[in-house]
Amino acid sequence: MTKLKKLVIFGVGLIGGSFALAARKAGIVDRIVGVGRNPENLNRALASGVIDEASHDVASALKGAELVLIAVPVAQTSRVMTQIEPHLEAQTVITDAGSTKQDVLAVAYTYLARHISRFVPAHPIAGAEQSGVGAANGGLYQDRNVVITPLPQTDPRAVEVVTAVWQACGARVSRMTPEKHDEILATISHLPHVLAYALMDEVANSSNAEELMFYAGTGFRDFTRIAGSLPEMWRDICLANRETLLRQMEAYEAELGKMRKLLADGDGPGLEQLFTNARNARNRMVEGKA
Amino acid sequence: MTKLKKLVIFGVGLIGGSFALAARKAGIVDRIVGVGRNPENLNRALASGVIDEASHDVASALKGAELVLIAVPVAQTSRVMTQIEPHLEAQTVITDAGSTKQDVLAVAYTYLARHISRFVPAHPIAGAEQSGVGAANGGLYQDRNVVITPLPQTDPRAVEVVTAVWQACGARVSRMTPEKHDEILATISHLPHVLAYALMDEVANSSNAEELMFYAGTGFRDFTRIAGSLPEMWRDICLANRETLLRQMEAYEAELGKMRKLLADGDGPGLEQLFTNARNARNRMVEGKA
Repeated sequence: MTKLKKLVIFGVGLIGGSFALAARKAGIVDRIVGVGRNPENLNRALASGVIDEASHDVASALKGAELVLIAVPVAQTSRVMTQIEPHLEAQTVITDAGSTKQDVLAVAYTYLARHISRFVPAHPIAGAEQSGVGAANGGLYQDRNVVITPLPQTDPRAVEVVTAVWQACGARVSRMTPEKHDEILATISHLPHVLAYALMDEVANSSNAEELMFYAGTGFRDFTRIAGSLPEMWRDICLANRETLLRQMEAYEAELGKMRKLLADGDGPGLEQLFTNARNARNRMVEGKA
Repeated sequence: MTKLKKLVIFGVGLIGGSFALAARKAGIVDRIVGVGRNPENLNRALASGVIDEASHDVASALKGAELVLIAVPVAQTSRVMTQIEPHLEAQTVITDAGSTKQDVLAVAYTYLARHISRFVPAHPIAGAEQSGVGAANGGLYQDRNVVITPLPQTDPRAVEVVTAVWQACGARVSRMTPEKHDEILATISHLPHVLAYALMDEVANSSNAEELMFYAGTGFRDFTRIAGSLPEMWRDICLANRETLLRQMEAYEAELGKMRKLLADGDGPGLEQLFTNARNARNRMVEGKA
């Protein structure tokens, strides 16, 4: 790919900061400009060399930009799109890193209508409970999946740019529809987060919460790790993917009901078969990633 | 504590083998005899020095034994108790390592009635998805909790022996009633296992199972780690703790219902509050263990 002269990142946190570090390491960009609402975080990004310039003026930040990455919490996407819309130039490709895609697209149709052909929605499936530029690292996307959900009207050149940039950061890029993305992510990410939060909330509300946590072993700890994720972020993700997630929560409750019936019936073979089916799938998954 | 002259372990797998290694490392035992139904595993334990003798004769194995550890799958406990009952000597203390305690006690009342005052039910809260003596390691119990559930009629000397041995292996020993043990373990262990198996079973049964697993990230992987546990073992644990687990599954489904209502209502503040409550508890738990 041709080296980018100017990359502008809105939101230089874990995701945006790691992208900056990876892009620089890959040697695919000359100048990285960071824009953000938290001056302390932005100064830290500048001081640590994650970005070359901390800008507080959107118009000048966007001048000559070839790529804009919106890496703010999903609920702030419309605000950023409104800010950038008047200043986007004809060559500027826009992408995002939001965990849900149908809602981002809905917002883009409203606030980026004139530039929609150069907007490539993307979701790097990487992250952590940590946040802020201090947690950023240039290897975060190595061998991780990035899903892009281009529209029929998306400019193929814009898709190429975003694909090439993520690949240079070490990621595997695949394409699907926004609907399919949100469906898949509900199952493998949003639902497990909700389930872990639910168990941890239940424990927290128990009269013997401290005792329960005292005896919890490594299994419980791993199971609930994602309940350490940022509440604001997951509130927004759940709301953004509400219909799909509600449907999947119902399906999961039905699955639990099935298992509860096996247990109530004392159906040992049935339980063992279900556990074996689950275990085999998990082993297949882990081997597939090894 | 006085050094044990003879320790007999029924079931030299991960749990029994790790106990043997830890006890030897602590220098609290002269001779360790292993008994088991799997000759290959037992020979391996002997060859690798985990045990000093592999015995196929229960009577001679128990001669002069000061401590017997039953570390077989819970469903085999009654068989082992029946085997050992006629050969137990007056000085022999008996303990187990089962994940549930009320059912083990019920079995002990039936099959170890004459020796019940020297039976100290115990549960080391440590383990892994791995099994067999090949996975055994002498550090498995370091800083882990071991819960013992003595009865009113349990000989205090027997309790002391079992406590001292586990402490020598690096564990923290605490006491509670069998009912309380099973209640606590249902919440922090049995329920999460069932939840992880349920999600993994659902994914496995999806028409796009391979695709879902392809996109699954580290969060999903950690959440489902315990779904890699042995199906037979967890079938038995679930059945052994059936009533308590059923009650807790219902409570969890009610918790999910509460969360689903918040989501259906689009109640952002409510979701955030629940997530925050869960996250705070988890952070407290992790800090407590650090």
